[in-house]
Amino acid sequence: MNLPTLKKRGKGSFELSSPVRIEAAASAAGPFEKKGRLRGAFDLTFDDPYLGEKTWEKAEGSLARRTVARLYEKSSLSPAETDFFFAGDLERQCMASTQGLLPYDVPYCGLYGACSTFGEGLILASALLDGGFGRAAGVITTSHFSTAEREYRTPLVYGKQRQPSAQHTVTGGGAVLLAAGPAPDGEPYAAVTRFRVGRMRDMGIADPGNMGAAMAPAAAETLTGFLEDFGRKADDYDLILTGDLGQVGYEIVRDLTGAMGFPLGGVYDDCGRLLYHEEQDAHAGGSGAGCSSLVFVASVLPRLLRGELKRVLLAPTGALLSAVSLLQGESIPGICHLIEVEARSGKEDF
Amino acid sequence: MNLPTLKKRGKGSFELSSPVRIEAAASAAGPFEKKGRLRGAFDLTFDDPYLGEKTWEKAEGSLARRTVARLYEKSSLSPAETDFFFAGDLERQCMASTQGLLPYDVPYCGLYGACSTFGEGLILASALLDGGFGRAAGVITTSHFSTAEREYRTPLVYGKQRQPSAQHTVTGGGAVLLAAGPAPDGEPYAAVTRFRVGRMRDMGIADPGNMGAAMAPAAAETLTGFLEDFGRKADDYDLILTGDLGQVGYEIVRDLTGAMGFPLGGVYDDCGRLLYHEEQDAHAGGSGAGCSSLVFVASVLPRLLRGELKRVLLAPTGALLSAVSLLQGESIPGICHLIEVEARSGKEDF
Repeated sequence: MNLPTLKKRGKGSFELSSPVRIEAAASAAGPFEKKGRLRGAFDLTFDDPYLGEKTWEKAEGSLARRTVARLYEKSSLSPAETDFFFAGDLERQCMASTQGLLPYDVPYCGLYGACSTFGEGLILASALLDGGFGRAAGVITTSHFSTAEREYRTPLVYGKQRQPSAQHTVTGGGAVLLAAGPAPDGEPYAAVTRFRVGRMRDMGIADPGNMGAAMAPAAAETLTGFLEDFGRKADDYDLILTGDLGQVGYEIVRDLTGAMGFPLGGVYDDCGRLLYHEEQDAHAGGSGAGCSSLVFVASVLPRLLRGELKRVLLAPTGALLSAVSLLQGESIPGICHLIEVEARSGKEDF
Repeated sequence: MNLPTLKKRGKGSFELSSPVRIEAAASAAGPFEKKGRLRGAFDLTFDDPYLGEKTWEKAEGSLARRTVARLYEKSSLSPAETDFFFAGDLERQCMASTQGLLPYDVPYCGLYGACSTFGEGLILASALLDGGFGRAAGVITTSHFSTAEREYRTPLVYGKQRQPSAQHTVTGGGAVLLAAGPAPDGEPYAAVTRFRVGRMRDMGIADPGNMGAAMAPAAAETLTGFLEDFGRKADDYDLILTGDLGQVGYEIVRDLTGAMGFPLGGVYDDCGRLLYHEEQDAHAGGSGAGCSSLVFVASVLPRLLRGELKRVLLAPTGALLSAVSLLQGESIPGICHLIEVEARSGKEDF
């Protein structure tokens, strides 16, 4: 008899046996993002949206590759010490992730969760390490404004007018390397402690210019499900961040969670609302698989390490659509994965 | 101090603490596949490649949905008892998986590993259950000849002549539900016991009509790496199956593994070679994300349950390309994930 011990859980949420540490992280931002509200917070920035490549798609691949390079520069671990690397993006068949990870010869797991992929990757990486499967696992998600416009909407040269509810796909991304065990030097660190895998919700919205509304019901389900499973309320956290709902979806989530008995109060915000200045005219805010990873690595993680935040919920949101599904009249299901991240000081948990 | 116990492993392979049982499985095959070598072995077959839908893409979504329905009919577990469901396909943004799983309200993790996705899903599902994260996890992968031709190659009506090294994308798929713990009734069962996550290999092949050659080096790396990690040789297994290399890739893997000191001998075959009769003119054989899952569920699993096979390696292979990457001159990296599956009789391991 050798059954695994079940983790503490609610009906769909899990607690790790021990926190899984964020060993290193790196962020990369494009020209529009580097002028925004998180100016100066990024590891890498690019003034050329092509990153010196000949196509937008190769540019996003290069962005992923350079972000991983910087991740390993900042880490005490090497690609050869990495047991899993999870990656995803919005390009057709996730080619930016393929091109980004190809040079590193790591065990590679491609994910597709649209803009929720960073959450899915953090869940899988931390759960595998907590389960004893290796010592280190990486996660990267990226997006690029121009590859996303070409893939999902209209060619840039067409110059389509964007509606106010539309969002601006982030050119950028974030990567983290998770490691089992405490920080070797006793320094403060941030760690994944609990998670909830999302369920799809489809409210019949079929407008790719209003993805915040399409994703909001899934976000409300995930957030309230997690809080209920662990008997928490919003103000047990210093910050609750959805991934890329933008202004429209943010307001819907406020309404829905309140109506469901879990008002989010003053600690709730959305990564898509945090990236751009109002005068940048990004309409409802940022979106894209790189939105939550970029904001988490550039802004949330440093505040956890400085002790300004103690306990955070990050809930990356995804709109499950394709240009083909839209043309065929399908609506857009949403999904939202959630991880709890805590600031830890030294070896307290070990 | 509450560190997880590291699983036994080589440099990139892992052994589960206890076997994770395949609780139920279901397969679905299209009109071409049902006339092939596995005729009569499928749970569901369809004579209409549209499955009554208006588009190829909706047809593949329907195929996934019906396969999951049959999976739960055959299982003692319900969607509500499922802790994770992993799914992937070849459509742009994996919409067949989205549409297939949407009605079931399960915690959903989308994967993109091209035709290797079934291996990636089995690895993640069994590792999470072995780590104590829940009691049941599903995996489904599908493909559809006509969605794949539209997505990756030329419109069907164009009538392009196919070269002999080209493969035929399988219309079909397979789904399994994995469960922690022994079979409740003491009956024989099949279980995942070990795995290896693949690493990408790119030998510069850029011809989507020769994907077997593009994937073969990754398959050789994964197979020899696994055998080396656990001190095994090919004839420790009753069957070693790659996913969808077809005839060309199959022969290259034979050569490469032999040259690497791990000759595969008489136990080696490829799912893509097993599906069609020669007179069906499928050229180098079957391919697609549904190829390995269909062959595994329809053919390998029953032989494990009947005791005809005791120990099997399944190594689904993927070609990481998109129509965009091909047009931009990129070569096609390959990847191959591996799982070891064993026949178990009753409660011997528990």
